[in-house]
Amino acid sequence: MATFTIFGTGSMATAIDGVLSAGGAQVDHISHDQGANGTVTGEVVVLAVPYPAVAGILGAYAEQLAGKVVVDITNPLNFETFDELVVAAGDSAAAEIQRALPDARVLKAFNTNFAATLASGKAGESATTVLVAGDDAEAKSLLASAIEAGGIAAVDAGSLQRAHELEAIGFLQLTLAAGEKISWAGGFSLNK
Amino acid sequence: MATFTIFGTGSMATAIDGVLSAGGAQVDHISHDQGANGTVTGEVVVLAVPYPAVAGILGAYAEQLAGKVVVDITNPLNFETFDELVVAAGDSAAAEIQRALPDARVLKAFNTNFAATLASGKAGESATTVLVAGDDAEAKSLLASAIEAGGIAAVDAGSLQRAHELEAIGFLQLTLAAGEKISWAGGFSLNK
Repeated sequence: MATFTIFGTGSMATAIDGVLSAGGAQVDHISHDQGANGTVTGEVVVLAVPYPAVAGILGAYAEQLAGKVVVDITNPLNFETFDELVVAAGDSAAAEIQRALPDARVLKAFNTNFAATLASGKAGESATTVLVAGDDAEAKSLLASAIEAGGIAAVDAGSLQRAHELEAIGFLQLTLAAGEKISWAGGFSLNK
Repeated sequence: MATFTIFGTGSMATAIDGVLSAGGAQVDHISHDQGANGTVTGEVVVLAVPYPAVAGILGAYAEQLAGKVVVDITNPLNFETFDELVVAAGDSAAAEIQRALPDARVLKAFNTNFAATLASGKAGESATTVLVAGDDAEAKSLLASAIEAGGIAAVDAGSLQRAHELEAIGFLQLTLAAGEKISWAGGFSLNK
């Protein structure tokens, strides 16, 4: 079973830890308070922080992240307008991170899942599914296996280019929850 | 109840007709064989044709479409690569159609629903939901009411700018079905 280091200690970090730990993975965290002084021990690193916090982590930890599988969970919304993303049209936060960390294998995952749906295993009445995009099949398989060991379905959503579509889903889902069309325990599910 | 004219006679056209007719709406069709000689009688016009066929319809029917509610259901994929959309980054087919028809009220809808899920009311085990985006609240309400009268849930997904996100969902869903991760009777559902 892979070892994981999660940046962050918020609701998404806690929910992801819950899934991975339930599956028997070894998980530790690097908190915001540790600044640049944390040690990345996991083979897989989950950046469970808001998008604006990513750049600082990449700046401080680029050397330690070389060779790792790095999981981006962010939804890079403009939270002032709630009407656009702050990445360039057609781009994605995950692709930005891959360009910043050329020696890491970057995956997009968890950005289409609200924290409550990872904890409960349900989005409304439907089973929670984690969508995973990335260019490295072995890295995707490593993450998907750890998620599935924790009792949550994981689906390979394609190459890292599909992070654009995953971020579109995450964006729309956030606007639907903010607009009270759905609850924060609901959202999109994927049906076979 | 609104009256509808559906361009197209394929599986999506048939499934959409099924929902609207079940709700008591009056529906007629303009087929490909009619060329530029059809008559648009409905208040709401559904372009239930593949994206490459839209430009020809707009060219031939622009005058008749003025003042109408026009529903775009397309997923503008590059079907050769199955790896990108053919609209510009950040844009959408629906926004293109709105620019071509400034006197129509354009909506995006049905592009995240496979035909079988409109006919059965289920995406896998989950209830089918039609996501509707557009700038005109009355037009969205007209379409949503007709869909709901036919027994299918409809959710207001926001302004016409959100068509970009709906097209991203449609795109990803098509790649997942083509890659046999999901069936053509499944796909994304929206949970409250």
